[in-house]
Amino acid sequence: MSEPVQVCAEVRRLDAREPEFLNTLEALLAFEDTADARINQAVTEILAAVRNTGDPAVIEYTRRFDHVEAHGMVDLELPASALKAALDSLSVEQREALRIAADRVRQYHERQLAQSWEYTEADGTRLGQKVTPLDRVGLYVPGGRASYPSSVLMNAIPAKVAGVGELIMVVPTPRGERNPLVLAAAAITGVDRVFTIGGAQAVAALAYGTQTIPQVDKIVGPGNAFVAEAKRRVFGTVGIDMVAGPSEVLIISDGSGNPDWVAMDLFAQAEHDELAQSILLCTDADFIDAVAASIDRLLPTMPRRETIATSLTNRGALIHVDSLEQACAIANRIAPEHLELSLENAAQWIDHIRHAGAIFVGHWSVEALGDYCAGPNHVLPTMRSARFSSPLGVYDFQKRTSIIEMSEAGARSLGKVASVLAHGEGLQAHARSAEMRVEGH
Amino acid sequence: MSEPVQVCAEVRRLDAREPEFLNTLEALLAFEDTADARINQAVTEILAAVRNTGDPAVIEYTRRFDHVEAHGMVDLELPASALKAALDSLSVEQREALRIAADRVRQYHERQLAQSWEYTEADGTRLGQKVTPLDRVGLYVPGGRASYPSSVLMNAIPAKVAGVGELIMVVPTPRGERNPLVLAAAAITGVDRVFTIGGAQAVAALAYGTQTIPQVDKIVGPGNAFVAEAKRRVFGTVGIDMVAGPSEVLIISDGSGNPDWVAMDLFAQAEHDELAQSILLCTDADFIDAVAASIDRLLPTMPRRETIATSLTNRGALIHVDSLEQACAIANRIAPEHLELSLENAAQWIDHIRHAGAIFVGHWSVEALGDYCAGPNHVLPTMRSARFSSPLGVYDFQKRTSIIEMSEAGARSLGKVASVLAHGEGLQAHARSAEMRVEGH
Repeated sequence: MSEPVQVCAEVRRLDAREPEFLNTLEALLAFEDTADARINQAVTEILAAVRNTGDPAVIEYTRRFDHVEAHGMVDLELPASALKAALDSLSVEQREALRIAADRVRQYHERQLAQSWEYTEADGTRLGQKVTPLDRVGLYVPGGRASYPSSVLMNAIPAKVAGVGELIMVVPTPRGERNPLVLAAAAITGVDRVFTIGGAQAVAALAYGTQTIPQVDKIVGPGNAFVAEAKRRVFGTVGIDMVAGPSEVLIISDGSGNPDWVAMDLFAQAEHDELAQSILLCTDADFIDAVAASIDRLLPTMPRRETIATSLTNRGALIHVDSLEQACAIANRIAPEHLELSLENAAQWIDHIRHAGAIFVGHWSVEALGDYCAGPNHVLPTMRSARFSSPLGVYDFQKRTSIIEMSEAGARSLGKVASVLAHGEGLQAHARSAEMRVEGH
Repeated sequence: MSEPVQVCAEVRRLDAREPEFLNTLEALLAFEDTADARINQAVTEILAAVRNTGDPAVIEYTRRFDHVEAHGMVDLELPASALKAALDSLSVEQREALRIAADRVRQYHERQLAQSWEYTEADGTRLGQKVTPLDRVGLYVPGGRASYPSSVLMNAIPAKVAGVGELIMVVPTPRGERNPLVLAAAAITGVDRVFTIGGAQAVAALAYGTQTIPQVDKIVGPGNAFVAEAKRRVFGTVGIDMVAGPSEVLIISDGSGNPDWVAMDLFAQAEHDELAQSILLCTDADFIDAVAASIDRLLPTMPRRETIATSLTNRGALIHVDSLEQACAIANRIAPEHLELSLENAAQWIDHIRHAGAIFVGHWSVEALGDYCAGPNHVLPTMRSARFSSPLGVYDFQKRTSIIEMSEAGARSLGKVASVLAHGEGLQAHARSAEMRVEGH
């Protein structure tokens, strides 16, 4: 599989000083994420069927799409013993790696836990914000090729740290094939129940509940186009995390460091799928040549070289920039999911970056560490949404409630203010309701 | 306008002990928020036109829908002097009320400001979370009847507290009619630019940018069905706040307090619109009778009695419950936007409530105070989404970036863990990229 084969990536070379550069960059970044009519139609039908009949629809779709015959939902639920058995079946090395990763992710996320707060004003009025975990969360895990145990860790651990009451995982097992690493990750993170279902039918079951599967309050986790569309549709009935686009890395280099490392970091992003995007911004033209040479030399050694070559050719770029200031300005325009500062004095550039999902600081901070075990979450805002959104975190599994406890004096005094404003808005019942407190018993 | 007229609200009476109660309650709460085909089609066209041609499309739609003739975008932007003039035009009482409300809202929201954090591990690895404000936010304010200055305060202040760089307000002025209270609220909160445009065309202009209107990163604020649908469509290109449903109040009473107060609090919710929902849960059947009598007596005195009567008749309920424990269980099932604990010892019941947008504790804590000037935000999760979402807050205008700065020792050690997990997922470039750090220079 991994013996050298000639595969070429024609990675485009750009120069940020060219007058047309920004237009070229925009064209390179452009990505429209639209579900086609066939997917829309199928998802509409599946959501309605599961909502209307529950378990029988789930069983039927699972037979049809995953080729799994179930006589009842009991055949589609994995007991805790099956998860434990999967964990025990791993090599010591794999089990230990999962444990170390889980521990580090947990330690980092514990720092995100928000606490309730309150304060009391001079007249005795007490105001506050109560923070509580979600009751029940659904975790979607894809089956087959893109079934990643790291994704179980990154979604389940923040939910558990938040204190979510019950975490229900769904993972399809096409033709009965189970992924032991995924099940082991579920065991390690304390997932409460696991159903071997997937697709839009699993999303529907979690969103609406069935006779067997309890309704959840939020659904998180990645999935294919059917899953993404189903999540979009049930949003409102339940919460959802983001609907992710292709994964991206942007590397800013000053020409220090090892060009092989940079090339391999670009590959690591590109191997995800053909739409993944790997871009290098570098102040040193000679170093760009060296990275290009590393790409040519290392690409044939990669098992996923076809995917990498397509991704780099269609969506990648090696860009020569004038200065690190210019590189940071371009990075802020791109708002990348992953940003590697592959620089000599990397830390001093952090504050030049306003928009990024995660910043990897210095040559030793490679994205692959962040993907698995550095601690921070690997679910990050894609498609420039780092301009307005954040990594998945404990805060996605907590919610806030405002607490307003007026003293009599506070209500009597503020009631007048509310009355003036309510009359200004033509809402007289609001005004009367406030005035009644001003007037008192 | 406000002289007594005979209007009747036939508020349904329910008993939580009836076997069919939960089904009846679910039917009462059910609300499907779906845009019709006509709205979908119009929004599709408007978004495309504004995206393709920018200013000319905005000017044309504003002429067509708002009957405002503009020769250029300069006619559709209000200078700061116009906002200042609106503020100066108010009565002293109104200006002072707006100022008190703004100050209190600001004080409360300053407590929500999240800070960046980091920690260093034994081997020198530094992990953290950097918190930054959004660069630019668009605030939609409806024109005409539902144009509320309080909504400007509640949306603009958290954005400003977060440190948003530029806050751009859009507010339609049908036939040129401006609301001085809304413009005064913009002046008080420091809104940076105001365009007198509205509808889907305003959402499109903010989301895509035009020759004159800069592209924003997030759009917040309420609007009609066209605005709501346009926000749904541009989500992803920009962030959006929630798409709100009808407003709701749930009051839990133990029979203490004044039935007139309870009736008026139910009215205050119901007067918003005919779909608004006001529900009372009470342990005392005699008190329910007293509230019903108050409703009958007070309703004819309300200027918005027609709306109140329709809302209470179609969507309201007076429900007799066995106990306060049962009332809290029902409240958690409803997950109300507003919850009033109209109880003798109200504070001790707060911890029985898991899901609510805001809890108003005790007889003096009326929702109308929270709507205007108590301090907490009045933009709250509707349609049971308090199960998974939060009041609008400063956190909606901040975003987080993970910081990962590995030491050499950290990378060499964790690189092995990442390599094992990456190989387990079949991602060999991830593995090689990590292994290169293990091997070192």
